Amino acid sequence: MAKDTFVEQIADIETDFPRWYTDVVVKTKLVDYGPVKGTMVIRPYGYAIWENIQKELDARFKAHGIENAYFPLLIPMSFMTKEAEHVEGFAPEVAVVTHAGGEKLAEPLCIRPTSETIIGSMYSKWIQSYRDLPVLMNQWANVMRWEKTTRPFLRTSEFLWQEGHTVHASEAEAVDMTLKMLAVYEEFAKNCLAMPVLTGRKTEKEKFAGAVATYGMEAMMHDGKSLQAGTSHYLGQNFAKAFDIKFLDKDGTQKYGYTTSFGVSTRLIGAIIMTHGDARGLILPPVVAPVQVVIVPIASKKPGVVEACRELKNTLTKAGVRVVLDESENSPGWKFNEWEMKGVPVRIELGPRDLEAGKMVTVRRDTHEKAEAELSSAAETVKALLATVQTDMYDRAKARMDSRIVRANSLDELLAGVDNANFVRAGWCGCRECEDKVKEFAQATARVMDDENTSETCIVCGKKADHTVVFARAY
Amino acid sequence: MAKDTFVEQIADIETDFPRWYTDVVVKTKLVDYGPVKGTMVIRPYGYAIWENIQKELDARFKAHGIENAYFPLLIPMSFMTKEAEHVEGFAPEVAVVTHAGGEKLAEPLCIRPTSETIIGSMYSKWIQSYRDLPVLMNQWANVMRWEKTTRPFLRTSEFLWQEGHTVHASEAEAVDMTLKMLAVYEEFAKNCLAMPVLTGRKTEKEKFAGAVATYGMEAMMHDGKSLQAGTSHYLGQNFAKAFDIKFLDKDGTQKYGYTTSFGVSTRLIGAIIMTHGDARGLILPPVVAPVQVVIVPIASKKPGVVEACRELKNTLTKAGVRVVLDESENSPGWKFNEWEMKGVPVRIELGPRDLEAGKMVTVRRDTHEKAEAELSSAAETVKALLATVQTDMYDRAKARMDSRIVRANSLDELLAGVDNANFVRAGWCGCRECEDKVKEFAQATARVMDDENTSETCIVCGKKADHTVVFARAY
Repeated sequence: MAKDTFVEQIADIETDFPRWYTDVVVKTKLVDYGPVKGTMVIRPYGYAIWENIQKELDARFKAHGIENAYFPLLIPMSFMTKEAEHVEGFAPEVAVVTHAGGEKLAEPLCIRPTSETIIGSMYSKWIQSYRDLPVLMNQWANVMRWEKTTRPFLRTSEFLWQEGHTVHASEAEAVDMTLKMLAVYEEFAKNCLAMPVLTGRKTEKEKFAGAVATYGMEAMMHDGKSLQAGTSHYLGQNFAKAFDIKFLDKDGTQKYGYTTSFGVSTRLIGAIIMTHGDARGLILPPVVAPVQVVIVPIASKKPGVVEACRELKNTLTKAGVRVVLDESENSPGWKFNEWEMKGVPVRIELGPRDLEAGKMVTVRRDTHEKAEAELSSAAETVKALLATVQTDMYDRAKARMDSRIVRANSLDELLAGVDNANFVRAGWCGCRECEDKVKEFAQATARVMDDENTSETCIVCGKKADHTVVFARAY
Repeated sequence: MAKDTFVEQIADIETDFPRWYTDVVVKTKLVDYGPVKGTMVIRPYGYAIWENIQKELDARFKAHGIENAYFPLLIPMSFMTKEAEHVEGFAPEVAVVTHAGGEKLAEPLCIRPTSETIIGSMYSKWIQSYRDLPVLMNQWANVMRWEKTTRPFLRTSEFLWQEGHTVHASEAEAVDMTLKMLAVYEEFAKNCLAMPVLTGRKTEKEKFAGAVATYGMEAMMHDGKSLQAGTSHYLGQNFAKAFDIKFLDKDGTQKYGYTTSFGVSTRLIGAIIMTHGDARGLILPPVVAPVQVVIVPIASKKPGVVEACRELKNTLTKAGVRVVLDESENSPGWKFNEWEMKGVPVRIELGPRDLEAGKMVTVRRDTHEKAEAELSSAAETVKALLATVQTDMYDRAKARMDSRIVRANSLDELLAGVDNANFVRAGWCGCRECEDKVKEFAQATARVMDDENTSETCIVCGKKADHTVVFARAY
């Protein structure tokens, strides 16, 4: 028996979730650590998830009339300083190129931490008239933010993402776009990642550096902590003014445009892992799983077994299912463990007895439910089963999250809530001091604000609350 | 009439090809100049070509069992120096990050000019046994090579590309992979870009820094100059030894692997433009054209015309054709010019008279051939026409290239050949001095060697020739 595919130990998910996470991402070969501190290598099994995410999201963007483009990696340092809040937020994290082509550069260049500035400078050149608006673009790119503490997918100095950047003639249109993209993310998270999210506006403290308003989606991880899984920013005229994005309006006057930006990253892969995983490893939602079905031959030396497995593989492949047939020399039990750890949504077992009866056995990764099905209608059965797994995974995660959103009327209740791995709803007056106090007292931050008018009182100072906020500990 | 879509002047293709090129790429909005010298912004119309290239090539790689992955952008400077030839070739061109996160880095990091070194360091960790081989990976990524003289798509400090990196247990397998990928590029160039190429081995002078042998494909541009459109490298054990990529073979001994790498870049977009373009602008091959068909309504105010155009657009879209209906307020003549400049392979004109007869008019961009066709079978007609355009474009380019490959028996003949915009075949003894002499005398370089045994004599020194070489001026 080959030793190199042995299913290795992973830490206990309940008692050591952080180690469970790093064990799982490394041992299932999703990712590895790069040679430069804080960088990651996305291995084929991880990258295939990203490719599926890209395919799904890209189609959604294009359906909204958004086109892809590509802007340069290097941004002149002087661009970063044009928007005051922006530079304050990002300057401490940038990586700086000082030398190139064997010479010292006249002006240092920073590796994009995000591209509002460089894209703004181009938009200013391209946009002349109201007829040029709206401009709706997106780019799939790498970005870099130098981080002190890093974790594969969740926080790495370099990561892959998409960043959408739009310009509109009016505030209303730009705000509408911001919310529309937030809705796209939410629908995508639900239907592709089987991941329920809370959406809402971010506080001033938590918003994007340079935005008027940031809207985010937050997902609940296995340990009850929140993960910011995507953000959509209404930038007002901040970047338009900083980069002179002006247009001649119908009324013959020059006006500044209103811009937005929105993004999700390879962080989503971490979110999937921590939303669905269990003690045995990954559980991947069928829509983005690199391998949706694994076929494991039983008593594979018996005549006809391997041939039948290959035929089944062809049938499923033709039906559009991403399927692997494990013909390695490992034992079936070994294969079960390995593919379970890798989170493949459905396993099919096929042996001589099944073949005789014209049957196959299906096993769901998420529920371990075993069923017999006719081989003759394998494609239909498997496709229906994958759809069911996808929906069930969402429903279970949703029920779990809903059951763990609690209400608090005091800081002590809030602390107890997050200590028990909950999201906590509470009133907040809107001032930074009270927000900081929550952080200090409970190590929890404001994730989203879900009501703008509320009858509650602030959980810290007791004054009338401006917002109901969801507080949580967060990644 | 809107002024902002006016078809602007482009320089004459025959008398000022370099300006024709920059005019065309900028005015058709394929690309724009980035704020940092030598960088480009790939605009949506250009990026859509790249997306089509990616889709086609990616499917071919996957059919060969190659998986996508993603490796870090930043490479420790010490990695670059591990392979002696490699560092010599690339060090002068790298961009260097010296500061990040507000601090000076202990070791400077370079932005990848290519990823053999960092991928080699990971392969060394992942590969233990012959069972782990072959390793077949590819990444789609940005790379940076600081260049003195730049031109959009052709030579820019940052560009997008794919780089394949494989490891094999034997020299034979690795060489086979190298040639297989060269064949993939050649077939792709022919069937997707309608671009004929010459393939063959590069001389020592022209090969990749660190390779044992580089194979390239060269395409003939409108001005008779050659453009290196893709390369496939057999790296022998050079990088395996530098990065300690070893495996335990079946015979129980530790051996170094044999590696390859291969890549094409956004340069291909430049190659398409300069292979097919004419005095009116771009001519895009249907397989990679962002817009394959434009519908121009004639007398669009007449009842039923716009409706019929919209219906036709839907019909074609459903048939999988990338189609645009130009409903702008510009005149039909204006639209003809604009979409011709943008290189859309087929134009459909539809007016009241056509409608009455149940017909439409199709006009080919490549030949300006006009034809009438039944509206009722529009999808079939258009798809067949696009296929014909694609084949004809290749055939014409092939005939042109073939007619311009001449043979030379002296340096004067060689000079006359390249002066007349030809590729020139000639014998070469294999020594660097003679190769340099050709460069000095005729400003031509060895593009590919197409025979290893030849009865010819060296065009420079008159000694027995080792190779027949295709010399040309090159981009």
